[in-house]
Amino acid sequence: MRKVFQAELHQVGEELIQISTLVKEALVRAADSFLNSDIEEAEEVISNDQRIDFLQNQLDERCIDILALQGPVASDLRAIVSSLRMSSSLERMGDLARHVAQIARMRFPEKAVPEEVATIFSEMVELDTQIIDSVIKLLETRELSLTEEIYSHKARINNLHREVFKMMNAEDWQHSPQVTVDVTLASRYLERFGDHGVSVARKVNYLVTGEWS
Amino acid sequence: MRKVFQAELHQVGEELIQISTLVKEALVRAADSFLNSDIEEAEEVISNDQRIDFLQNQLDERCIDILALQGPVASDLRAIVSSLRMSSSLERMGDLARHVAQIARMRFPEKAVPEEVATIFSEMVELDTQIIDSVIKLLETRELSLTEEIYSHKARINNLHREVFKMMNAEDWQHSPQVTVDVTLASRYLERFGDHGVSVARKVNYLVTGEWS
Repeated sequence: MRKVFQAELHQVGEELIQISTLVKEALVRAADSFLNSDIEEAEEVISNDQRIDFLQNQLDERCIDILALQGPVASDLRAIVSSLRMSSSLERMGDLARHVAQIARMRFPEKAVPEEVATIFSEMVELDTQIIDSVIKLLETRELSLTEEIYSHKARINNLHREVFKMMNAEDWQHSPQVTVDVTLASRYLERFGDHGVSVARKVNYLVTGEWS
Repeated sequence: MRKVFQAELHQVGEELIQISTLVKEALVRAADSFLNSDIEEAEEVISNDQRIDFLQNQLDERCIDILALQGPVASDLRAIVSSLRMSSSLERMGDLARHVAQIARMRFPEKAVPEEVATIFSEMVELDTQIIDSVIKLLETRELSLTEEIYSHKARINNLHREVFKMMNAEDWQHSPQVTVDVTLASRYLERFGDHGVSVARKVNYLVTGEWS
């Protein structure tokens, strides 16, 4: 029974990594479509999101089956419940990448954001990419030093998010309301993406240490 | 054992209702603080959100204990797993109400939004209030006709959300970028609030019928 459970748990871990890898791809391509106004890239991110949703559902069903058939307790139980929660955060990260691609698609062939903000967005995307990279590594290795990296990347994203808002409120911001709306939403999506990364990291930390960080 | 389980499950249901009731209060007061620039109301919503977070954690711990101690299967298992997910949606709804109150606090003593959009926001708030009201009733009664109401309220919120964006892109929108940013975020928060209501409704529907609606 124990051996079966370990194999099942391993499989759940593999699927979380698989979903995270797709989320990373979605983020990178969504950011590219958004910053370079690439409509094909945007379309693909939008349609590929179904794959992430499908895998999340499959993983959730697997977790529920494990609960039903193996009746795990203690740390095994927490591993399954945490996996359910991580899958939900990862699915949201996929949605947020899709939302960024949707802005790109809506504004095509125009670029959604002006040059001066694009630089900040590039940095946010870079940090979000590092976050999802660290999430993948964390799921693979359970190496808790990675959680600290994730928290610190998120702190930098928060600063950039505030910077974007400061730019929009500065006197020399002469862009249309539509640009202001797009920039507001995109910044919020990229910031939330990082939040969910932090949330996954906290769950792994909890699994390993039994304590919330 | 069965009797104990039923009592535990009943308690979980009661706590979901308790959290939903606090979420409703948070929404109504946040909206009031936002539309009428009431700083005290805003402060209270912001600080009361901790209570919702605390109750959610407590409920989650209870669900995990039930899984560990009772090892439920089949529909009982799904009831517990669904409760965990509903509590997470409800907690997010509390956060979104808090975000609305935070905009009110940030702009005090000014009103965050101009009169012409405030009317649309009032309608969105009214629909969100009906959604959380229906969620509470749905948790109390499992009466599935309520889910249809929730979906239809959400469809109307989506329309209003689009209307807000249309107003901001119209020629006669002469407000500052700051106002545009606040309106964009508030509209997004109120729209997401409804999404989470729908998500809770779908979980109840699934519990009762075994099928996703």
